[in-house]
Amino acid sequence: MSRIAYVNGRYLPHAGAAVHIEDRGYQFADGVYEVCEVRDGALIDEERHLARLWRSLRELAIRAPMGEGALKLVLRETIRRNRVRDGIVYLQVTRGVARRDHYFPAPDTAPALVVTARSADRAKVNAAAEAGVKVITVPENRWPRVDIKTIGLLPNVLVKQQAKEAGAREAWYVDADGRVTEGGSTNAWIVTGEGVIVTRPAESGILRGVTRATVLEAAQKLQMRVEERAFTVEEAKAAKEAFNTAATAIVTPVVAIDGSPVGDGRPGPVALELRRRFHEFAARAAG
Amino acid sequence: MSRIAYVNGRYLPHAGAAVHIEDRGYQFADGVYEVCEVRDGALIDEERHLARLWRSLRELAIRAPMGEGALKLVLRETIRRNRVRDGIVYLQVTRGVARRDHYFPAPDTAPALVVTARSADRAKVNAAAEAGVKVITVPENRWPRVDIKTIGLLPNVLVKQQAKEAGAREAWYVDADGRVTEGGSTNAWIVTGEGVIVTRPAESGILRGVTRATVLEAAQKLQMRVEERAFTVEEAKAAKEAFNTAATAIVTPVVAIDGSPVGDGRPGPVALELRRRFHEFAARAAG
Repeated sequence: MSRIAYVNGRYLPHAGAAVHIEDRGYQFADGVYEVCEVRDGALIDEERHLARLWRSLRELAIRAPMGEGALKLVLRETIRRNRVRDGIVYLQVTRGVARRDHYFPAPDTAPALVVTARSADRAKVNAAAEAGVKVITVPENRWPRVDIKTIGLLPNVLVKQQAKEAGAREAWYVDADGRVTEGGSTNAWIVTGEGVIVTRPAESGILRGVTRATVLEAAQKLQMRVEERAFTVEEAKAAKEAFNTAATAIVTPVVAIDGSPVGDGRPGPVALELRRRFHEFAARAAG
Repeated sequence: MSRIAYVNGRYLPHAGAAVHIEDRGYQFADGVYEVCEVRDGALIDEERHLARLWRSLRELAIRAPMGEGALKLVLRETIRRNRVRDGIVYLQVTRGVARRDHYFPAPDTAPALVVTARSADRAKVNAAAEAGVKVITVPENRWPRVDIKTIGLLPNVLVKQQAKEAGAREAWYVDADGRVTEGGSTNAWIVTGEGVIVTRPAESGILRGVTRATVLEAAQKLQMRVEERAFTVEEAKAAKEAFNTAATAIVTPVVAIDGSPVGDGRPGPVALELRRRFHEFAARAAG
């Protein structure tokens, strides 16, 4: 089946889905995005993703491309046309098309909206994730507004590629104080020797992860002990477990940091339980 | 006359010039650009712009889309088809089109190349520039790799818009030590009370400006005193003159910083002389 993309009001064959060369997303990274999991045909944590989208747009003074109801319909129609039952839906909003100039274009410039969806083999994804992943650590070098989910992802691309070339899956950013901020495309967590789940507060130099928020709630409801505070690389290396969260990763155990095994070097029970039970706690909206 | 853009091997009417939605420039800001002045049909400082382009590409491990000779032909053909005698030519190279994934795509992925050109009314541009511009100062908040001319310009967009809303033209970034790094899309300069021209060394937190390099040479050849060192906002406000440089701005006098007049609040003689004589020192390549 050929894939279909939604582009500014039209559903187009993926191969021919295009945006103008002067779309400000292409010339200035002047836009934001969201990735939402699709599972059994349902959108996972859709409300939280859309709430974050509206916030990102407000922070950048980009107009909403359409109302929330209409956007939900577009997400569903894109999922339906691509027959995605398990996978992801991706959406991107930019400030629209205008003659190249740094300043914002005329206020009546229409923002651009692109939506794609694709299937994933759930069993395969699960098997890969449950085997655990390795991470490397890299110095934090992004601008401070990482709380806005912008498409300006080149720094993240470079550290993720660096991780890959080092035989790892993810790179954890480390701030000037030696404390982990977050991964190149995930939030970072550890489980201490005392069994306390630790992750950095969302107010402090990281993205307000949607999956992160749901995992926090899930852990609390499962009577696990949770602490929101920054942790150092040393603490992470000495931890009993570590894991990453993201809409695409859900909960993925980390088995090594910079080549040092975490715990016994195998996926930890807390991470695996959170992964397996995550969807009991996440919100599901019919696709 | 309708405008024409070069897009990945084809010359297209501007209105229909498009790139794929999964071009990594659109989803990751995974690309670089250059802007080169066109004057009397000649390309100004083309060699320096191309040298910087190759460096930017190398730093990001993006393949060159074509050899230098071929690229020069495309620049000229784009200028010719748009009948630009005075104006600019813009080029952008991205890592190409691939299924969305942070990691670099397969090595055989073709990089994307887009080239546009447009005319400017030289007399009008000159009159505006020679009237001088106002700048505001803003905290430096970009990633440290500003030496690479990437399309990840959202931080710059935001401070330039902030400047505009404050009635100014440019925003000067100021580092944690209170020293000016550069403008949102220009390099920053002052002329001290002793008549010394001062600009920040290119090795230190700024783009290696092409126009900056040519202005440095021009000032030296004109027997002006030049010093490459960082300067503070206070020093700039107390300076005799200030100005900005860029391929589009050439040399543009700054008449106010954060609302304080620079010198007597009028464009200074050093800046005006450098602006008027700039093209005696810049390299010209036939268009």
